[in-house]
Amino acid sequence: MNQPRPRPATIRNVAALAGVSVGTASKALNSRGQLRQETRDRVLAAAEQLNFRPNEAARSLSSERTFTVGLISTDSIGRFSIPVLLGAEDALDAGTISVFLCDTRDDPIRERHYVETLLSRRVDGIIVTGRRSDPRPPLARDLPVPVVYALTPSRDPADCSVVADDDQAGFLAAEHLIATGRRAIAQITGPARFDAVVRREKGLNSALAKHGLELTGPVLYGEWSEAWGRRAAQNLLRSGVEFDGIYCASDMLARGAAEALLAAGRSVPGDVALVGTDNWDVMVEGRRPSLTTIDLSLHEVGRRAAQYLLAAIDGEPVPGGMETVPPQLIMGESTD
Amino acid sequence: MNQPRPRPATIRNVAALAGVSVGTASKALNSRGQLRQETRDRVLAAAEQLNFRPNEAARSLSSERTFTVGLISTDSIGRFSIPVLLGAEDALDAGTISVFLCDTRDDPIRERHYVETLLSRRVDGIIVTGRRSDPRPPLARDLPVPVVYALTPSRDPADCSVVADDDQAGFLAAEHLIATGRRAIAQITGPARFDAVVRREKGLNSALAKHGLELTGPVLYGEWSEAWGRRAAQNLLRSGVEFDGIYCASDMLARGAAEALLAAGRSVPGDVALVGTDNWDVMVEGRRPSLTTIDLSLHEVGRRAAQYLLAAIDGEPVPGGMETVPPQLIMGESTD
Repeated sequence: MNQPRPRPATIRNVAALAGVSVGTASKALNSRGQLRQETRDRVLAAAEQLNFRPNEAARSLSSERTFTVGLISTDSIGRFSIPVLLGAEDALDAGTISVFLCDTRDDPIRERHYVETLLSRRVDGIIVTGRRSDPRPPLARDLPVPVVYALTPSRDPADCSVVADDDQAGFLAAEHLIATGRRAIAQITGPARFDAVVRREKGLNSALAKHGLELTGPVLYGEWSEAWGRRAAQNLLRSGVEFDGIYCASDMLARGAAEALLAAGRSVPGDVALVGTDNWDVMVEGRRPSLTTIDLSLHEVGRRAAQYLLAAIDGEPVPGGMETVPPQLIMGESTD
Repeated sequence: MNQPRPRPATIRNVAALAGVSVGTASKALNSRGQLRQETRDRVLAAAEQLNFRPNEAARSLSSERTFTVGLISTDSIGRFSIPVLLGAEDALDAGTISVFLCDTRDDPIRERHYVETLLSRRVDGIIVTGRRSDPRPPLARDLPVPVVYALTPSRDPADCSVVADDDQAGFLAAEHLIATGRRAIAQITGPARFDAVVRREKGLNSALAKHGLELTGPVLYGEWSEAWGRRAAQNLLRSGVEFDGIYCASDMLARGAAEALLAAGRSVPGDVALVGTDNWDVMVEGRRPSLTTIDLSLHEVGRRAAQYLLAAIDGEPVPGGMETVPPQLIMGESTD
């Protein structure tokens, strides 16, 4: 219909023909951000008219890239965001992309400030992470760069979130305890308000039900500390309930529980098998017996989130919703 | 000599008169970077001729500032660089300055890459930190922005480094053990190749000597782990040497030692008083008795380094050499 063009169309040509900015054209072509349907249609029509092809889009955009990615953590850079960060760096690196880390300390004002700073530095995209698996509000509406959530998902199902599989963590722990012959399995866990606590319990119960079993004793909710692990195990012992296995929703809880059991003359894993969660080396290897634990694959969570971000930066479509990364059972000496 | 000027001179006026770039003028006026003496003299003469005053320099420079600081950590963002980072953020914040964190993972190629990236992003200055107190080579020669070293000092005495006081850590531990009536004090520590190990031992011996005492038993060098703390305490017990106090150069070592002592029927602090190092909550509060420990004030190390950097960015002179931040004794239940 048109004259053959001497060179392939660029996103600038598309934007000019549609009468919008390059940023808006990019959003429309990548199905990102909030645009009026009419605007989106006009850009797509312009792209079709110019025979604009996505891989050329990536090429034409690449000259505008800064090869810098922002990583916003609400976690004061803590134990959970570090493996996510390292996984993201592994995916982003190849010596070409730099990660700028912003620590918002759970403060919305700091977060807004950092988002603005990252945008003014023209980062190519942003990864958002935190310390909990409870969903959080989206970073901001209509950002000019792609955003991917890691570990802490966005409440907006249109956003791309990569998270740990807490249900599967509880399920895997119960399956392992049952496979090693345990039938009376108790649970020591964190505060009931945590999403991770609810989901790990759900997974645990679902594996027990699959084998016609029920949880032994009450669910022992408490703080995420060794002290609570100790007290909870002491409570279990005092209650007179018979048990031969405990699933602990963190390695700190498991270490405290192991200590209380050994102090009370119960052998681990002879009398009671223990499975922790997190695969935190300091807790897992700190004492004998070392702990069997569920590794939540946080490094892989970070790596996948970064891969999605890179794809989005290259103009590829990125799935909305939550993608879960399977956890792994790490054998220690607290089960047999 | 000259006509009265309608407005105070700016650094641009000075640079123009001296026939140099604004950056070179800034370096000459702030005595930073490597310049030929002739160039420096020409800039200073121009500044004098224009009655150029430093606080106006800061004001005129401020429009060129990006209010962004780079923090380069060689520590994969670990347990020691985190408090330094948080302290730096506290000093830099006030909602105006953003910290971009670069994790070099002890890789010189990554480090060079990050330095270039930070400079291309036009950061106002750079803080360098790491996991060890052993001196490191300077970041690079003749950087266009000020650099301050935190925790891990620069080998170049002209650089500004803020570090923990490892000598004082050992000294403080021994003084405390002696003040609580202990006379036969042993030591469990990390690998002898660590600067921190050498210095803490030196401080310990110096306090012992002050009171006419000597270290009890051999120095127990080993890896930084609870397992080594346990084994070292078992070695001490087996050796038949009488001891009533142990200084441990980390809290992990102290926790392992406490466990071995209790398992051997020795009470802590009744029979043996224990002092750890680091004030790492997970180790200090993980079990009973909680640990008495030496806090190395890493947060303050980061805060001071950032304050020096801010001063340097404002064109103020910054002291070369190492500044040490005093550690603090934190009382727990392992001494009385």
